[in-house]
Amino acid sequence: MKNITKTTIIAIAMILLVNGCHTINPKDSSKENTDIKTSAPLSSWNDGHAKQSIIDFVTRTTSENNADFIPVTDRIACFDNDGCLWTEQPFYFQLAFAMDRVKTLAPDHPEWKTTQPFKAVLEGDMETVMAGGEHAILEIVMATHAGMTTDEFSQVVKEWISTALHPKTGKLYKDMVFQPMVELLTYLRAHGYKTFIVSGGGIDFLRPWTEEAYGIPSDHVIGSSGKVKYAEIDGKSVLIKLPEINFIDDKEDKPVGIHQHIGKRPVFTAGNSDGDYAMLKWTVEGEGPRFGMIVHHTDSVREYAYDRESSIGRLNKGLDDASKYNWLVVDMKEDWKEIYKE
Amino acid sequence: MKNITKTTIIAIAMILLVNGCHTINPKDSSKENTDIKTSAPLSSWNDGHAKQSIIDFVTRTTSENNADFIPVTDRIACFDNDGCLWTEQPFYFQLAFAMDRVKTLAPDHPEWKTTQPFKAVLEGDMETVMAGGEHAILEIVMATHAGMTTDEFSQVVKEWISTALHPKTGKLYKDMVFQPMVELLTYLRAHGYKTFIVSGGGIDFLRPWTEEAYGIPSDHVIGSSGKVKYAEIDGKSVLIKLPEINFIDDKEDKPVGIHQHIGKRPVFTAGNSDGDYAMLKWTVEGEGPRFGMIVHHTDSVREYAYDRESSIGRLNKGLDDASKYNWLVVDMKEDWKEIYKE
Repeated sequence: MKNITKTTIIAIAMILLVNGCHTINPKDSSKENTDIKTSAPLSSWNDGHAKQSIIDFVTRTTSENNADFIPVTDRIACFDNDGCLWTEQPFYFQLAFAMDRVKTLAPDHPEWKTTQPFKAVLEGDMETVMAGGEHAILEIVMATHAGMTTDEFSQVVKEWISTALHPKTGKLYKDMVFQPMVELLTYLRAHGYKTFIVSGGGIDFLRPWTEEAYGIPSDHVIGSSGKVKYAEIDGKSVLIKLPEINFIDDKEDKPVGIHQHIGKRPVFTAGNSDGDYAMLKWTVEGEGPRFGMIVHHTDSVREYAYDRESSIGRLNKGLDDASKYNWLVVDMKEDWKEIYKE
Repeated sequence: MKNITKTTIIAIAMILLVNGCHTINPKDSSKENTDIKTSAPLSSWNDGHAKQSIIDFVTRTTSENNADFIPVTDRIACFDNDGCLWTEQPFYFQLAFAMDRVKTLAPDHPEWKTTQPFKAVLEGDMETVMAGGEHAILEIVMATHAGMTTDEFSQVVKEWISTALHPKTGKLYKDMVFQPMVELLTYLRAHGYKTFIVSGGGIDFLRPWTEEAYGIPSDHVIGSSGKVKYAEIDGKSVLIKLPEINFIDDKEDKPVGIHQHIGKRPVFTAGNSDGDYAMLKWTVEGEGPRFGMIVHHTDSVREYAYDRESSIGRLNKGLDDASKYNWLVVDMKEDWKEIYKE
């Protein structure tokens, strides 16, 4: 299967499967700011060019008398999620969520035992699922998630993210967020930056847990989405998730998603794959000081090592042009003291 | 022309005409908070039921030991714009912007002098323009705004909002924001509420000036929108405004717009017309303490008086059901000491 096809499939799965509205563990941002400003920032980053470049940029753009000073209202920082803020291997975590959802609902659908692609999902046969392509994924989505309210989807996501374990590490998926990136988000916010997620993943799969994991509230999450419809159940108004695509937040549409949600061109953007190329280019081509950053997966021991040939998180054009656009390429193996919080 | 048709026309005009990315006059929110908490709030409101209801709600929901306490992360307040935060008569201000735009571009289009609907616009003949219906407005939009970048549109809006004058008051349009509502927005933010605009108007017509006028940053503006496309001009990435509708943020789609942008059901919502009915109902039908509010245009001297029969800002069903849903109906004539800031 070609990379572009897989991206599309995953995106469709993500936006149709999920939905959510709540935050879990509200943070006191004023306390956060004080903590960060008085202690050493980015402590999970090794000293070196990458760490220093970030600190230099933030210092320059937030020092009032510096020529590169950026007013608070323009301090917009955007981050891809899969592979940038958390791991995306052996396949996007949201696909794991979708598969688990099929298993949960299987008792109500005895026919799935003998019908593809459900049979393959129930048998854990990922190869057959993926071989079924877009059609198979769409079928899974529609059969399992049509007609639920956004509140119900939110609850489902919250339960999954609190219990499901990664097949390789045995960790909770939400514990596989990158500690150095969490520190970067916190460091930026402590200096007046608003931090946004700009993900190809489902906006409503992300929202139920991004506040707890990253300190990013639901209204700072941009992603792919399905259509929702206003309806009344027993006279009470609800929103129902429809099996229709609203927006795929990937590639050239990442700047579009940013424009529709934020209305400003970011000054700081981080990604890890060619799906982030347009967003990175659009960011650094704005006027004034800009920062583009690519997380390069180089650590096969502590995480995964992949780039130009990977079907998930492919990074090819981005590596070719990083120096041309002055994007910082972060070497996970060399630049990060730890990957996940211990 | 029926009300629903007019709404659609205006919405189309709004979303296709405009675009913007910048804020004008960044506020220091921490200073704002201190000022408000130590002085008498809502000073442009007369003492009475309306003012007291608002203060009671905000006090209850932000006092930690109160049963109605709402955590900071759930303090989401949504406001319609036209007729709720600023005047919307004799026709939506954004339509005035559209007409002015035609006049500005006319020298490059001598054929407009003899071609409808441009001829009518140039002659200030609003009746003929409106009689041309949706088709006429769409034609104006496409002829005047296709192919511009979002940055260019933003600049056009900023110039217009800083110079154009209202036909009745002679004020700048941006000086026709309701001072009592600006105080309400400030009061809510001082108590940890995030304030959002949820407008049927164009998201990008609003963004260039909402920070200065209301203290609402561009990422807190939800509205109708046109599609935009990523493109490169001389190798540089830009976003181009397309003559296609992306989303009409009105009626039952206001809750949808809120969900897609914020991902949470608001706890406080204010509107002024039946276009806000679904948003108000959805708000107060959530669990826990909720506040719904309708601005009722009752002051024919200081502003305009209209409700059930108006083609702009029609308020009929909302008046019928306000007591059923416990929505506060604000009587502009009785409850507001002043309408605009002197």
